[in-house]
Amino acid sequence: MNRPYNFSAGPAAMPEEVLQQAAGEMLDWHGSGMSVMEMSHRGKEFTSICEQAEADLRDLLAVPPHFRILFMQGGGLAENAIVPLNLSRGATVDFVVTGSWSKKSQKEAARYCQPRVAASNEASQHTALPDPATWQLSGNASYVHICTNETIDGVEFQELPDLAALGSPAPLAIDFSSHVASRPVDWSRVGLAFGGAQKNLGPAGLTLVVVREDLLGHALSICPSAFDYKTVADNRSMYNTPPTYAIYMAGLTFQWLKRQREGSTTGVQAMERRNIAKAQLLYEAIDSSGFYLNKVRKDCRSRMNVPFFLRDEARNDDFLAGARNAGLLQLKGHKSVGGMRASIYNAMPIEGVQALVAYMREFERRHA
Amino acid sequence: MNRPYNFSAGPAAMPEEVLQQAAGEMLDWHGSGMSVMEMSHRGKEFTSICEQAEADLRDLLAVPPHFRILFMQGGGLAENAIVPLNLSRGATVDFVVTGSWSKKSQKEAARYCQPRVAASNEASQHTALPDPATWQLSGNASYVHICTNETIDGVEFQELPDLAALGSPAPLAIDFSSHVASRPVDWSRVGLAFGGAQKNLGPAGLTLVVVREDLLGHALSICPSAFDYKTVADNRSMYNTPPTYAIYMAGLTFQWLKRQREGSTTGVQAMERRNIAKAQLLYEAIDSSGFYLNKVRKDCRSRMNVPFFLRDEARNDDFLAGARNAGLLQLKGHKSVGGMRASIYNAMPIEGVQALVAYMREFERRHA
Repeated sequence: MNRPYNFSAGPAAMPEEVLQQAAGEMLDWHGSGMSVMEMSHRGKEFTSICEQAEADLRDLLAVPPHFRILFMQGGGLAENAIVPLNLSRGATVDFVVTGSWSKKSQKEAARYCQPRVAASNEASQHTALPDPATWQLSGNASYVHICTNETIDGVEFQELPDLAALGSPAPLAIDFSSHVASRPVDWSRVGLAFGGAQKNLGPAGLTLVVVREDLLGHALSICPSAFDYKTVADNRSMYNTPPTYAIYMAGLTFQWLKRQREGSTTGVQAMERRNIAKAQLLYEAIDSSGFYLNKVRKDCRSRMNVPFFLRDEARNDDFLAGARNAGLLQLKGHKSVGGMRASIYNAMPIEGVQALVAYMREFERRHA
Repeated sequence: MNRPYNFSAGPAAMPEEVLQQAAGEMLDWHGSGMSVMEMSHRGKEFTSICEQAEADLRDLLAVPPHFRILFMQGGGLAENAIVPLNLSRGATVDFVVTGSWSKKSQKEAARYCQPRVAASNEASQHTALPDPATWQLSGNASYVHICTNETIDGVEFQELPDLAALGSPAPLAIDFSSHVASRPVDWSRVGLAFGGAQKNLGPAGLTLVVVREDLLGHALSICPSAFDYKTVADNRSMYNTPPTYAIYMAGLTFQWLKRQREGSTTGVQAMERRNIAKAQLLYEAIDSSGFYLNKVRKDCRSRMNVPFFLRDEARNDDFLAGARNAGLLQLKGHKSVGGMRASIYNAMPIEGVQALVAYMREFERRHA
């Protein structure tokens, strides 16, 4: 079977091997006589699946022992409330606004604390990241929030800010939804990381939270028990019934990630090499053409989400219809910015990007 | 393939036909070239899946037009906070405590309102429901909360209370997690109904909320946007990325339900007939034996969750091991009450209950 290439920003393409394994195990997981969906979350079968997924993720992302891994629900938008409910202590929180997602996070936090904008790239229409040296950090923030990859705007932090070096004692909270597991994380600079699974980890409905242990136990009294990180951590993500099948699918994806090799590297390091090569190929094709355009400053460009525009936007519908016929799916840009967007997460092979570039060149040749 | 019978209380058995269909469509849904997991939730493919699921559910449960159907996340435990965040207005709420779940609901609500216990069956150790005529309802409650089927204690309301007739003007909120779609709902007596999907509707990670339109728009300001019923309703359950695959699986289950026939009935009416027959068979086997025991008063017994005890509890492990060998899975009772529990949801065929009864008689013959 020849599957088309799916450039959806999320829910996004998953590795074909993972889908095949899931289909094969759907009615009977490992001789248990049950689908994974049918297992009690407290039974030994599902407990083994969940513990393996957590251990594999810890290994892949090199999560240190003093961080807890939580499997939750609600996605990034729910976390926009859940993070301040747990970490803000009702006080000041610094936000660095770099695009649609960090802006939403800042807005939602106002229900629970005093959010401050410590820096913003709105003046550049989110096409470049503000230099950390220019951030106006407050001295008493409960935490500093950044979105390390803006899915809609296509900007990505290539390095995490060192808050201590910038003079802030606050922990850094990162929304890494759309580039988690595409590159290593420097945990020495992070207090909390969260992300919806539906881009790089698995199906929608699962939210990953990785949190430093000393940040647990400070939730506001109005925080729902099911979203209190300490309660979730104390119950190993089983306080409420977790999204069991989504955890299983993410676990299969983690095992797939561990099998990946690129030169002498494996896992996330191997993915990073591939992701650099894929992004380079696509950005070079855009930059070398007078027909297509990406507006983001080169050193801030996302390896995962590549928004681009046809200089003649009247051809957008033609471009999308032709792409679909060529087996290149879900390339339409987000409604708030228009144009096109190619999301090239871990599950997108280099062949998919090559096929997209070939189609773009062919379309340009026909219409330029 | 001969699958064992799975009596899990949830996540629970799903119809085999549904699992087979899902396995067959895993890599390519209807020629789209995508797994359902890989579809943008805003694309036409998934929109059609979600709208069909909602329409089928409305049809199956005969939900009137002035009620909205919401697909959410977090399960029953999260709803224990989300319901008062949306409906309590910070004021008094009446709770009828009939078992573990309603008790948890009452406890959690105290974060957001003044919960009152209007009635309780704790004196009977949750083995009988308090007669609505004896409930001490307050005159000014924002709503009245009941759990219409207590999964752990095995008690079920055979009829919904008529609050207006009892002198309360408040809307009734029901937690129908563990018997939704097993019997019709009298919506004229309901303001809001909620339930986790993982018992009778589909996989864990999906929460169903059915809410009367006039109850929307009164959320407390501290309610996270992603859990504000009005926001969710205004965005047709697409404010945040919904648990797309779980919605798809629930949709397949709704279609399976619509295909079921029993005599002249279909859908939920057909399921109700079967569920009555299944429950009758199992309770009669227990009651006619001096070896097994169910403690719930006969008119309050759940058709879905049948807790029972061996009078000689020293034989529990033997019973469970033998059951497993006979292809009867997940019969162990909830840790808080011990003993056994057979959950016989819609997906459990009568043949499964017959096999359980045959095993129970055989075990008794060998050990009595």
